[in-house]
Amino acid sequence: MKILVTGAAGLLGGRLIKALLAAPAGAQRVTTIVAADTSAFPAEDPRVDIRVGSIVDAGFLRSIVDADVRVVYHLAAVLSGGSEDDFDAGMRTNVDGTRSLLETCRALRTMPRFVFSSTIAVFGGDLPPVVPEDLALTPQTSYGTAKSIAELLVGEYSRRGFVDGVSCRLPTITVRPGKPNSALSGFVSGIIREPLAGVDTTCPVPLDTRIWICSPGAVTQNLAHAGSIDTHALGSRRSLNMPGLQVTAEGMLDSLARVGGPEARNRVRVEHDERVARAMTGWPAALDDRRARRLGFVADASVDAIIKQYVDEHPAGRG
Amino acid sequence: MKILVTGAAGLLGGRLIKALLAAPAGAQRVTTIVAADTSAFPAEDPRVDIRVGSIVDAGFLRSIVDADVRVVYHLAAVLSGGSEDDFDAGMRTNVDGTRSLLETCRALRTMPRFVFSSTIAVFGGDLPPVVPEDLALTPQTSYGTAKSIAELLVGEYSRRGFVDGVSCRLPTITVRPGKPNSALSGFVSGIIREPLAGVDTTCPVPLDTRIWICSPGAVTQNLAHAGSIDTHALGSRRSLNMPGLQVTAEGMLDSLARVGGPEARNRVRVEHDERVARAMTGWPAALDDRRARRLGFVADASVDAIIKQYVDEHPAGRG
Repeated sequence: MKILVTGAAGLLGGRLIKALLAAPAGAQRVTTIVAADTSAFPAEDPRVDIRVGSIVDAGFLRSIVDADVRVVYHLAAVLSGGSEDDFDAGMRTNVDGTRSLLETCRALRTMPRFVFSSTIAVFGGDLPPVVPEDLALTPQTSYGTAKSIAELLVGEYSRRGFVDGVSCRLPTITVRPGKPNSALSGFVSGIIREPLAGVDTTCPVPLDTRIWICSPGAVTQNLAHAGSIDTHALGSRRSLNMPGLQVTAEGMLDSLARVGGPEARNRVRVEHDERVARAMTGWPAALDDRRARRLGFVADASVDAIIKQYVDEHPAGRG
Repeated sequence: MKILVTGAAGLLGGRLIKALLAAPAGAQRVTTIVAADTSAFPAEDPRVDIRVGSIVDAGFLRSIVDADVRVVYHLAAVLSGGSEDDFDAGMRTNVDGTRSLLETCRALRTMPRFVFSSTIAVFGGDLPPVVPEDLALTPQTSYGTAKSIAELLVGEYSRRGFVDGVSCRLPTITVRPGKPNSALSGFVSGIIREPLAGVDTTCPVPLDTRIWICSPGAVTQNLAHAGSIDTHALGSRRSLNMPGLQVTAEGMLDSLARVGGPEARNRVRVEHDERVARAMTGWPAALDDRRARRLGFVADASVDAIIKQYVDEHPAGRG
C-alpha cells in the first residue's frame, strides 16, 4: 500500500511515518510512503520516498499523488501564529493548498482516504464548557478560519465521492520537542520542555486557564487510525473532535513537579502575554469527544503520563 | 453614497436597486449604484451604472469597486441546481468569486459594508425542528457548501477589519415571477405562479413537506436593512438567520385556493421528484430568527400576504 504524508518533516509527520512503517502484522503492508515537505529531512527506511516542494504548487502535487496512493495524510500547514502574522500566506497554504491537494486526489478517480489534520481552533469566542461536535464553527483566528473552510471542503469532496475524507480536530499537542514553533499555543509545550532542560521560562496565560491537550504519541496513533476506520460510521459528519484531556496551566505545572521535581516547577513564572492569552481564552477548554472514542480514537491516560512520555523519549531533557 | 450590487439583473438585484433608489428622506442619498451582472439589462434611473462582466474575472471586479463604494450587496451566485450539476462552476463563482470580491474590497482599505446573500442551505441533514443560529453548518449540497465557506470568509475578513460584513441566510423565496431558475427549490414558486397563470403544474415533494419561506418584498427590505445596521450589535457572529414563515406545501396550496380560487388550486398535482424531495428534506424546515428580528429584520405577515403580493404585482397572472 502506498501512502502520502504532507508536512512530513514536522513532529507529527515524522512520528506518523514511523508508526505506519511499524504497522502490526495483519495490517495492509506499507510499500511506499511519499513524504512531502518544503525542506529536505532525513529518513532511514528505504520505503520512504522524500519529496521536497510546496503544496501551493499544483505541479508538485501532481508529482506526488498517483493512483496507487490509497491514503493521504494532509498535515502541512502554516500554523496559528504564522497565519495571524501573514494572512495571505496562511490562506494560500491552508485553504488553497488543501483544495489543490483535494483536486489532485479527485482527478485520480480512485477516491483515496483523505485524513486531514484540523484543530480545536475551528471553535472560538463564547463557548460552552464542553464543545459539542455539532456546534457552529466560529473561529477567532485566521488559522482556525482556514481549517474550518478546509473541513467544509473535505466534507463536500467526500459527499461528492471525490475522496473518502476524515477531518481530525486535534487538541493542543504537548510536549513538543525542539524549538518553539509559530503556534500561539507553543507555551503549552514550553512550560514543560524548557524546565526539564534546566531552562527558565514563562507561562503567558493565567494559571487557571483551561487547556485541551494530547500527547504526540496519542495524536499519532489517532491519525494512523483515521486512515483505516470504516467511514460509513461517520455518516455525513466527516469532522471528529479528537479525544483529549482537560487541564489547567497550573495542573500541568503540578504534573511537572511530580514528574520532573520541584526545581523544574520553580523554573516557570507567570508573565502575561495579551496576544497569547486572548487566543487561548477564545479556544475551547474541552470538547465532546465521545463519538471519536466510540470509533476507537484514544486519549492519554493522564497529564503525568503525557510528561513521562516526553521524558522517556528525551532522556537528556532536551528536544 | 455609492453602492455596488452584484447579480443586479436577478429578481432580488432589480428589486433591491429600486428600493435603494427610493430610500426615504433622511437616509443617506444614493448618488450611484454600480449594477453588475453577466448580461446586460435595462435600467431607467440615470444613477444606475450598468456593468456587464463576471465576478470570477478579477479585472472586472477592480473596474467596478472603488474607494467611494460604501456598501457592497453581493447577490451574484450559481444557484443550487446549477452548482449540483457543475461543481467547478459553482465553486468558481460562489467561492472564488466571493473571495475575489472580498479581496478587491480589502485592497481599498476603506472597510466597506459587505452584505452577502447566504442561504438556509448552509444547514442540512439531520436537523432539529427549529435550527438555532449557532448550529454547525452541515451543508448537503455543493451550493450550501460554497455559501458556508463564503460565510466563513465574510466573518474572517470582518474580524480582520478588511470589510464590515453581514451574511444574510435567506429563506426560500416565493413567489418568484418569470421562468423557473436553476434552484432546486424552484417549485416553491412554481406551484403558485403557474396555476395563477392558468397553467397546470406539479408539486415534486409530499404535501406535508415543511418549507421556510419569505416574499421577494420582505427579502429585499431585509437586504437593504443589512446595509445600514450597526454591526457592533453582531459581535463576532456575522451570519444572521433571516426571518421567515414556516409552511407546508399543502399550506401554500390552501393559500393559493383562498387567494386565487379553487380552480387555481386544482391545477397542481403531486408528482414525486426524488432529486428535489431529497434536497428539500435536507433543508431546514424552520430557523431561529429571533436575533435578526431584534435587529429590525422582518418576515411577511402571512402566506396569504405573500401570494397577494405576487398577484398585486403581476395582475395579468404572468411573471
